[in-house]
Amino acid sequence: MAAGGPKNLSFVLDGVRKVRFEDRPVPALKDAHDVLITVKYTGICGSDVSPFVLKEPMVLGHESSGIVAEIGSAVQSLKVGDRVALEPGICCRRCEPCKSGKYNLCVDMVFAATPPYDGTLAKYYVLPEDFCYKLPDTMDLKDGALMEPLGVAVHITRQAEVKPGDTVVVFGAGPVGLLCCAASRAFGAAKVVSVDIQEERLEFAKKYAATGVFLPQRIPPKENAEKLRSEHGLGRGADVVIDASGAEQSVHTGIHVARPGGTYVQGGMGRDEISFPIMAACTKELNMRGSFRYSSGDYKLALDLVGSGKISVKELVTKVVAFADAEQAFLEVKAGKGIKTLIAGEDD
Amino acid sequence: MAAGGPKNLSFVLDGVRKVRFEDRPVPALKDAHDVLITVKYTGICGSDVSPFVLKEPMVLGHESSGIVAEIGSAVQSLKVGDRVALEPGICCRRCEPCKSGKYNLCVDMVFAATPPYDGTLAKYYVLPEDFCYKLPDTMDLKDGALMEPLGVAVHITRQAEVKPGDTVVVFGAGPVGLLCCAASRAFGAAKVVSVDIQEERLEFAKKYAATGVFLPQRIPPKENAEKLRSEHGLGRGADVVIDASGAEQSVHTGIHVARPGGTYVQGGMGRDEISFPIMAACTKELNMRGSFRYSSGDYKLALDLVGSGKISVKELVTKVVAFADAEQAFLEVKAGKGIKTLIAGEDD
Amino acid sequence: MAAGGPKNLSFVLDGVRKVRFEDRPVPALKDAHDVLITVKYTGICGSDVSPFVLKEPMVLGHESSGIVAEIGSAVQSLKVGDRVALEPGICCRRCEPCKSGKYNLCVDMVFAATPPYDGTLAKYYVLPEDFCYKLPDTMDLKDGALMEPLGVAVHITRQAEVKPGDTVVVFGAGPVGLLCCAASRAFGAAKVVSVDIQEERLEFAKKYAATGVFLPQRIPPKENAEKLRSEHGLGRGADVVIDASGAEQSVHTGIHVARPGGTYVQGGMGRDEISFPIMAACTKELNMRGSFRYSSGDYKLALDLVGSGKISVKELVTKVVAFADAEQAFLEVKAGKGIKTLIAGEDD
Amino acid sequence: MAAGGPKNLSFVLDGVRKVRFEDRPVPALKDAHDVLITVKYTGICGSDVSPFVLKEPMVLGHESSGIVAEIGSAVQSLKVGDRVALEPGICCRRCEPCKSGKYNLCVDMVFAATPPYDGTLAKYYVLPEDFCYKLPDTMDLKDGALMEPLGVAVHITRQAEVKPGDTVVVFGAGPVGLLCCAASRAFGAAKVVSVDIQEERLEFAKKYAATGVFLPQRIPPKENAEKLRSEHGLGRGADVVIDASGAEQSVHTGIHVARPGGTYVQGGMGRDEISFPIMAACTKELNMRGSFRYSSGDYKLALDLVGSGKISVKELVTKVVAFADAEQAFLEVKAGKGIKTLIAGEDD
Repeated sequence: MAAGGPKNLSFVLDGVRKVRFEDRPVPALKDAHDVLITVKYTGICGSDVSPFVLKEPMVLGHESSGIVAEIGSAVQSLKVGDRVALEPGICCRRCEPCKSGKYNLCVDMVFAATPPYDGTLAKYYVLPEDFCYKLPDTMDLKDGALMEPLGVAVHITRQAEVKPGDTVVVFGAGPVGLLCCAASRAFGAAKVVSVDIQEERLEFAKKYAATGVFLPQRIPPKENAEKLRSEHGLGRGADVVIDASGAEQSVHTGIHVARPGGTYVQGGMGRDEISFPIMAACTKELNMRGSFRYSSGDYKLALDLVGSGKISVKELVTKVVAFADAEQAFLEVKAGKGIKTLIAGEDD
Repeated sequence: MAAGGPKNLSFVLDGVRKVRFEDRPVPALKDAHDVLITVKYTGICGSDVSPFVLKEPMVLGHESSGIVAEIGSAVQSLKVGDRVALEPGICCRRCEPCKSGKYNLCVDMVFAATPPYDGTLAKYYVLPEDFCYKLPDTMDLKDGALMEPLGVAVHITRQAEVKPGDTVVVFGAGPVGLLCCAASRAFGAAKVVSVDIQEERLEFAKKYAATGVFLPQRIPPKENAEKLRSEHGLGRGADVVIDASGAEQSVHTGIHVARPGGTYVQGGMGRDEISFPIMAACTKELNMRGSFRYSSGDYKLALDLVGSGKISVKELVTKVVAFADAEQAFLEVKAGKGIKTLIAGEDD
Repeated sequence: MAAGGPKNLSFVLDGVRKVRFEDRPVPALKDAHDVLITVKYTGICGSDVSPFVLKEPMVLGHESSGIVAEIGSAVQSLKVGDRVALEPGICCRRCEPCKSGKYNLCVDMVFAATPPYDGTLAKYYVLPEDFCYKLPDTMDLKDGALMEPLGVAVHITRQAEVKPGDTVVVFGAGPVGLLCCAASRAFGAAKVVSVDIQEERLEFAKKYAATGVFLPQRIPPKENAEKLRSEHGLGRGADVVIDASGAEQSVHTGIHVARPGGTYVQGGMGRDEISFPIMAACTKELNMRGSFRYSSGDYKLALDLVGSGKISVKELVTKVVAFADAEQAFLEVKAGKGIKTLIAGEDD
Repeated sequence: MAAGGPKNLSFVLDGVRKVRFEDRPVPALKDAHDVLITVKYTGICGSDVSPFVLKEPMVLGHESSGIVAEIGSAVQSLKVGDRVALEPGICCRRCEPCKSGKYNLCVDMVFAATPPYDGTLAKYYVLPEDFCYKLPDTMDLKDGALMEPLGVAVHITRQAEVKPGDTVVVFGAGPVGLLCCAASRAFGAAKVVSVDIQEERLEFAKKYAATGVFLPQRIPPKENAEKLRSEHGLGRGADVVIDASGAEQSVHTGIHVARPGGTYVQGGMGRDEISFPIMAACTKELNMRGSFRYSSGDYKLALDLVGSGKISVKELVTKVVAFADAEQAFLEVKAGKGIKTLIAGEDD
């Protein structure tokens, strides 16, 4: 740590549209199982740029990788210097969801950059050992920062129970949608069709992981579904539909494009209430599920998939900016530029 | 069969609102596994009184019991004189849904009183042996006619995966909703709350099978859900929510009253598209399923539950009318009178 | 606490067959979530009387109820004076099984009376709040002590996925086998056949919870299975078979009595290796599972089932002895006397 | 068909060890959904060379591909000349297993070359349309004959619920074991360890589909399991263990090498009864399943996996012999030569 410099420079949201840097104390380990991490890369997520209602200033960021700087007395699986991906939500470990394997639904979750909890866009961050994932030699620290959105995509794909031979349609070709395409392929899907309203995104999707793409027309969702089915040889419909867009039109087309008995997973966030073709979902006996963050085994699988080369995440990184340029990076993400922008950690 | 009388008097829908009696030929067995049944009781269902678009006149009715009058050469489990409940949808047995245990999603289903297929409101009806369920001695032919709506309710309750100790909220206290309450109890639910906007229905539900009832107020669904949760001690929400109403307000309240990680089943039919609180469903990771008719094992379980006394269906029969009075009975059901009206089979 | 008396009198196993009383310090709360419990009743389990290899003396007992005597600063759901059932295994909350909902398979489990961890047969015992279950008003402290074997039986029955209408065969009519019968009934089983080689146990089973009983003959297991199937009308076999005996003959008969596609759960402990009819299990595609202790939701359901009157456990208590008579009670259990003996807590 | 030549030359088993050729009538279509197939390639299976007890002579063979020669009046998905893989077991479509998606457990299965039903080693064979699978352009008729053992392997792998990231150990490196390795890889397994007692088989396995191999030592199974775990970095054990050997030693090692909460599938056939480490299986709460033939969706997935290039089966074909040399081929298979020998169909 440079003598005289800031101890734990942090990127703080101070109001609905106001951000600034602030020097904060280096956080202490709270538990013998905790580790202190020097944050190295942090991705910016759509949710980071949406307006929060804050009572107090909050550090932003939750998609991070870093290097272990200090370990608690009970830590066994990590040592100082280890490169890790950070899973940024600490569950209470005691409530019913925690004890039944669904800790993402924890009653007392402490999640980075979700008010009132500070995020990871700081020089240091503390996590329990079991929420840090050691990177294999085949992965670099930039890959590590991408484990968060891949964790989201892996969770969605598991909620969707994608199986070998399945046909999958993914609505939305942003980072999570693209990673859902890649995860579906890694899960053995026979066809993965990416759907988006931006042609350049579809071009990227096709090169990256989709086996086919579909650009919706300005026609009713049922007709778009019909067109999608016939153009991509989906017969009675797709085995699995994933919405990673949150858009009403996508939800409608998605429900109509699913086969009877198929599965639909809502992964994308959008308006609280939308119009919904409930009778189609009912008479086709769709299995519909929400997907929220990630839970038991998701990060581990995300690392396995990238570490073994089944999924590559490097293509998604559009730009890496210095910590000092964090605000500019946020503004660009808000403007919809690029796929994923990473902010490098503050220099030592 | 009375000499000179009609051979197979049938109650026929002849247009959107026109019904009449017609004498038709006695149907022949089409297969060595078929049986001919003299229909004895037929319930009237809400779907029977909804307007169909017909190309040709169609016999109505699909909730029936009867007595075996003739058996095909390959029939082994039934003999002439056996009393049976009729499962009125014959699947193709060859398509993917049929071969994977979801024959209710069959591509070529032949379902009674679903155009263009004739229903069971006739003197005779033909079914394959395996769609006829012999009534145990503890059940009478009127009980047998109730196996159809109970089959629907059992299918919904199985889709909902109701488990011992679960808390269940059922929206709608018509025949299917009431039977969902009874089935949930039989499945071991700890609490079953019936919700309806008619107080007299709630009174019936309470006497019949619900452990508690809830009359929604004229307040937003989220507030009704909050009130329902606190009044019935549901903590973070119900383990299972079943909608047997099809009403938009019920769907909203239902999604909000389900606990994180809970299950929501859409059993009731209503408008094709409604407004839907999709973000609540997504962030709570609800398991949502449609439920359509019945499939493998549902009728068998319905008979087991009634035969063993775990569910009683007699209370639901408001009235039994003669075959000659079928039209009057339909008009009364349309007007919302009573719970379940049965039409007796034509006299021999 | 009586002035001058022992502070925390404990019943200690000191060698393979040597037990004695010992006064130990009152245990301190180790965590803000811990509570101190005055133990009131403790059941004796077959496993308590089996020979352990010990490095140090160990307090026995793990089937207990008690009264909260002190609470940690973070405890919210309990207060001093609350009557509770004790779940006697504390998991690490951090390993993969803990975080995926299977904490009974925890890598670092601390289980009462499993070497080297002390058991509950003492005046005081400390547990985290979430392993204490407040008894409803309808249950007394003796019922509370039975929650441990019922937790075992509930776990077995859930592993067996007993469903409404199922036919179930339970081998062994000791406490766990009997409770498996009761749990299967509560789960909606249509038939529950208890199998044991002692006629008086079968008589008890029949009065208690079984719908039928079977006394195996001195014939090959396949023939016993055939006899069992035909005597109890099980058709191609039972949907579910539970072995709560651990006996080789039972395992064989059990595999042969299960229907194709049925489920077999090994709950009873016996010899490490036995002869096994593996080809029958293979060609019938049985689902076979082990069952070990209890996990997420099992105690909660056990309390719900007894609290709501669906299961009664009082019948199983053969005898209640004073703390001072613990050794005599152990000897009687070892001799196979009675169903369940409870040891009352040391007087204040 | 050559004038004057045999009409439907068939390879017939005439007693325990006696085979011969026999000219039989060309079989007629029995149903409008049937097709007549000219058999082109037939693999020999271990089960073909095991001693059957026969009442009447029976045509051998059940691993076949062929060309459609005639179609029934209701056939829609196939036309004369189509190249197809044959699924050689016709279920009754009416029993409970058939209607619940487990037709491999059908009460009245008619399976090729299982007494008394004739097999496919003839010039012609009749099957219902839905048991014939049209080969994609990327597959030849030899690949088609391999769909039967791959169907077996796919069924095993699905019973094993192999998931992305899983570690899998497969005992036995014969055709089915090798195909289980390939299927596990296609299902996304991170590690697939092939175990066999023949080194040359392990060499093949490694080149073909395994990520690692293990040659058991002459030490107790528990020690072999320990060695396997540590050599292959399996931590607490493999997520999934598949036995495709049927050997007692493999079963023991397999149970011991599975992780707590892991899955064990018995796919290989061996002695009816063996010694079994039941307590290890019980206390680790293993999910154990038998696997028998194939059922809904297995052949479809087998074709998808080969058609899309995810699995290659050509490597397994050691030899193709003329129909006239069938007996010699059987003798060689019996002697354990090669991996898979195909018998070409009789020339036109």
